[in-house]
Amino acid sequence: MNDQLIIFDTTLRDGEQSPGASMTRDEKLRIARQLERMKVNVIEAGFAAASNGDFEAVKAVAEAIRESTVCSLARANENDIRRAGEAIRPAASGRIHTFIATSPIHMEKKLRMTPDQVVEQAVRAIGWAKEYTNDIEFSAEDAGRSEIDFLCRIFEAVIKAGATTINVPDTVGYNVPEQFAETIRSLIERVPGSDKVVWSVHCHNDLGLAVANSLAAVRAGARQVECTVNGLGERAGNASLEEIVMAVRTRKDIFQCDTRVDTTQIVPASKLVSGITGFPVQPNKAIVGANAFAHESGIHQDGVLKHRETYEIMRAEDVGWSTNKLVMGKHSGRNAFRSRLQELGVDITSEEQLNHAFARFKELADKKHEIFDEDLQALMSDESSEPKEHFRLLSSSFHSETGETPCARVTLAVGGTEAKAESCGSGPVDAAFKAIEVVARSGTELLLYSVNAITTGTDAQGEVTVRLSKDGRVVNGQGADTDIIVASAKAYLNALNKIQAGAEKMNPQV
Amino acid sequence: MNDQLIIFDTTLRDGEQSPGASMTRDEKLRIARQLERMKVNVIEAGFAAASNGDFEAVKAVAEAIRESTVCSLARANENDIRRAGEAIRPAASGRIHTFIATSPIHMEKKLRMTPDQVVEQAVRAIGWAKEYTNDIEFSAEDAGRSEIDFLCRIFEAVIKAGATTINVPDTVGYNVPEQFAETIRSLIERVPGSDKVVWSVHCHNDLGLAVANSLAAVRAGARQVECTVNGLGERAGNASLEEIVMAVRTRKDIFQCDTRVDTTQIVPASKLVSGITGFPVQPNKAIVGANAFAHESGIHQDGVLKHRETYEIMRAEDVGWSTNKLVMGKHSGRNAFRSRLQELGVDITSEEQLNHAFARFKELADKKHEIFDEDLQALMSDESSEPKEHFRLLSSSFHSETGETPCARVTLAVGGTEAKAESCGSGPVDAAFKAIEVVARSGTELLLYSVNAITTGTDAQGEVTVRLSKDGRVVNGQGADTDIIVASAKAYLNALNKIQAGAEKMNPQV
Repeated sequence: MNDQLIIFDTTLRDGEQSPGASMTRDEKLRIARQLERMKVNVIEAGFAAASNGDFEAVKAVAEAIRESTVCSLARANENDIRRAGEAIRPAASGRIHTFIATSPIHMEKKLRMTPDQVVEQAVRAIGWAKEYTNDIEFSAEDAGRSEIDFLCRIFEAVIKAGATTINVPDTVGYNVPEQFAETIRSLIERVPGSDKVVWSVHCHNDLGLAVANSLAAVRAGARQVECTVNGLGERAGNASLEEIVMAVRTRKDIFQCDTRVDTTQIVPASKLVSGITGFPVQPNKAIVGANAFAHESGIHQDGVLKHRETYEIMRAEDVGWSTNKLVMGKHSGRNAFRSRLQELGVDITSEEQLNHAFARFKELADKKHEIFDEDLQALMSDESSEPKEHFRLLSSSFHSETGETPCARVTLAVGGTEAKAESCGSGPVDAAFKAIEVVARSGTELLLYSVNAITTGTDAQGEVTVRLSKDGRVVNGQGADTDIIVASAKAYLNALNKIQAGAEKMNPQV
Repeated sequence: MNDQLIIFDTTLRDGEQSPGASMTRDEKLRIARQLERMKVNVIEAGFAAASNGDFEAVKAVAEAIRESTVCSLARANENDIRRAGEAIRPAASGRIHTFIATSPIHMEKKLRMTPDQVVEQAVRAIGWAKEYTNDIEFSAEDAGRSEIDFLCRIFEAVIKAGATTINVPDTVGYNVPEQFAETIRSLIERVPGSDKVVWSVHCHNDLGLAVANSLAAVRAGARQVECTVNGLGERAGNASLEEIVMAVRTRKDIFQCDTRVDTTQIVPASKLVSGITGFPVQPNKAIVGANAFAHESGIHQDGVLKHRETYEIMRAEDVGWSTNKLVMGKHSGRNAFRSRLQELGVDITSEEQLNHAFARFKELADKKHEIFDEDLQALMSDESSEPKEHFRLLSSSFHSETGETPCARVTLAVGGTEAKAESCGSGPVDAAFKAIEVVARSGTELLLYSVNAITTGTDAQGEVTVRLSKDGRVVNGQGADTDIIVASAKAYLNALNKIQAGAEKMNPQV
């Protein structure tokens, strides 16, 4: 029988560290539930010591998830580890993932510690972690540029101390497959006690090789891969979960292992992460890109028709591509609405929330013929961010005409009071944003504005992402509406609300 | 001294075959000029026999490009090769790239030929090609699933017949690096005459391994890589040019070769291709993604500050990332405008075209404070598609107000005459599209609608992409304007014009 390859998803930690991809607690929960549904083995939910918000998010995921192990990252110091330990306490199965840098350049320039001090600190860290769980992962930060003798020494020490998973990250994405596989192979051979632990890799994609390096490591004996949905992550991102899972599955002849992932949940997970972060998936992305399974060329179609295997190595339905399901319309009732939401993994916590959501669903159904799953998800995404809103759009009006300057009027709820403003601009969206700023005076800078139709057809809802920055902080706001100007105004206000609510936080680098 | 690794760019052929990525002759020319500026060795400009449009596009590229070899693809039949030969005749350096399938499944199911017949046909093809050029590339389609003995046999035969480059494609993206390298290594060892030709690879990205497979082949002796800007290409695309070039350059210690590519032209090329195709580049794409060089996390920034190399293996400026250059404003003159366009690689063919473009530049400068390079490129992109327009937007007016149905009025030029229409819709964009359809009655289906701000700031222009399909054909339309509704209407009309103009064509599969 084949070994199991453990899929460790770090979308909520390393993925969330992408500039502009930060997520609220509720957004993290929605993604965690989808990861559980997809049957990933381990969900790294965050870095509990980074901020109170991160702590709460990890804790909330630990409370909600039953079928996957929930993990928090922690630097190798007492405070970080205790925060991580507290955050994962409610988990059915909890892990602490602690790390320290091991490359000469990092130890000298960043940590300013000697190699002896680094080993000692790592062993102490395992000790603190053991007070909370027996599932302890240790990472050697920048292992890709560390000396192999030193890696052997520190890994031996942490295994003796009780680490159960040893992770070898290529932090700066500098490795190439053959060489990285050689590193893993010789570590497994040389480290005493290596047969008692799971070997893991965590690859970055700076040279486009994260997936290839991870797979080469699997062939060399690694049995856990750290990865993210859509390859999200700092800079060029991490190894893509979907590519790892499908490569191992499609080439069972080459890899001596398989995952327990339910691959039909891959595309829904990709869409959810893309929707929440506002990071588009390029059409030519493997597995989850819109064109990944499109067979369009003439010669090619001929081939497909004559014999299916000619050009297909995977089936679109195996990874969850299916035509949009028409689920709802004007005449759908409350119960149908509620049960479809449950199937989509959206939690309704109160009757009041259901009533509010259902009212908005009816509003949407008046404007839009056919309501798809994506529409419901956008609607609920809008909905779930409501309670804490400082700014809210009450009504708006826009006019633009060739030869005249476009103008907008908005009425906002600000805290408890109502405020009206109007402004003209270079376009109606610009005018709307300026009108909002007459009230908000936020001092933010607009970094990105993008719109995607959520479904096809001219009456599709537009989902707008607005990225704002203020004093070095970057937030994304989303808004959906069949009216693109209204969607834009909502997205802008959503981003302002996040700026209003959020606090600074720190992101570790593994 | 290191060998040169030949960069064979197929953005204009395999890239253009992506559903929705088809390009006009002028768009191909603009990309070809950028590829020449980037110093790629070979530009595969198209598949001359596919259609008259393709023939003309290859010919136009062959006429315009002096510093790169211009290539046309051709199946291994006389008509295809003669069309390719005619199309590349004007080139300073021209290549014919002919292919035939060699895997058992393809020979039997698609070609319905015996192996003997396939070898004979391939040799004949080289003979026809020699009437036009000595630079002849031969590809064994689906080599990744072909028998190695048969590959040796057919390669030996075509080398004897005069092929100078032997390409080994992994057509369905099924290979993994170690195994693909082994294939290349043993072909080079076993094929008589292998030292007289350049060995080439062409990898697809279905499992996310196109770049890794290409690089593994380079380590095994391949000296040409076929790739595309942004990894564009059918399904999950081809190997990314930018990742190949930067991996080889960054890891000179591992690869025994380097390219002649001017890497500072990589990001401009990426933006140009993304703009023309309307395919976004995801932020976490290696090298050319918006976040690829963003170092945002707290711990990480600390590391960067303490010692730059801690986290950087490449420099952003080496691949052409630089802050937006503020080039123009309200007070810029005609000469400054013309010379900036020339620097951007935009050809102005007549005084009339310059006057028209300059007038539109002034219009834009009235609405928008600062005009960036991207704005000029969008303006000219709009401009260059004008001459053949069947539908054109003359004026428009939109109104939307909370509680009312959004409505739009448009005045269009249709051929020589003027037509007015109005419609309401679920949003102002929907209303505008419906108003246009009152006139156009195109019968198309809207597949995709997306908007990106071209530059930052609230007065940014929006660039809208609309993808329409009719009878199985898929076209992209683009439009840019500071008013998003106007940009949307322009994009929709641009797509309708392409539907109006275009003819069916066939795309080969290599």
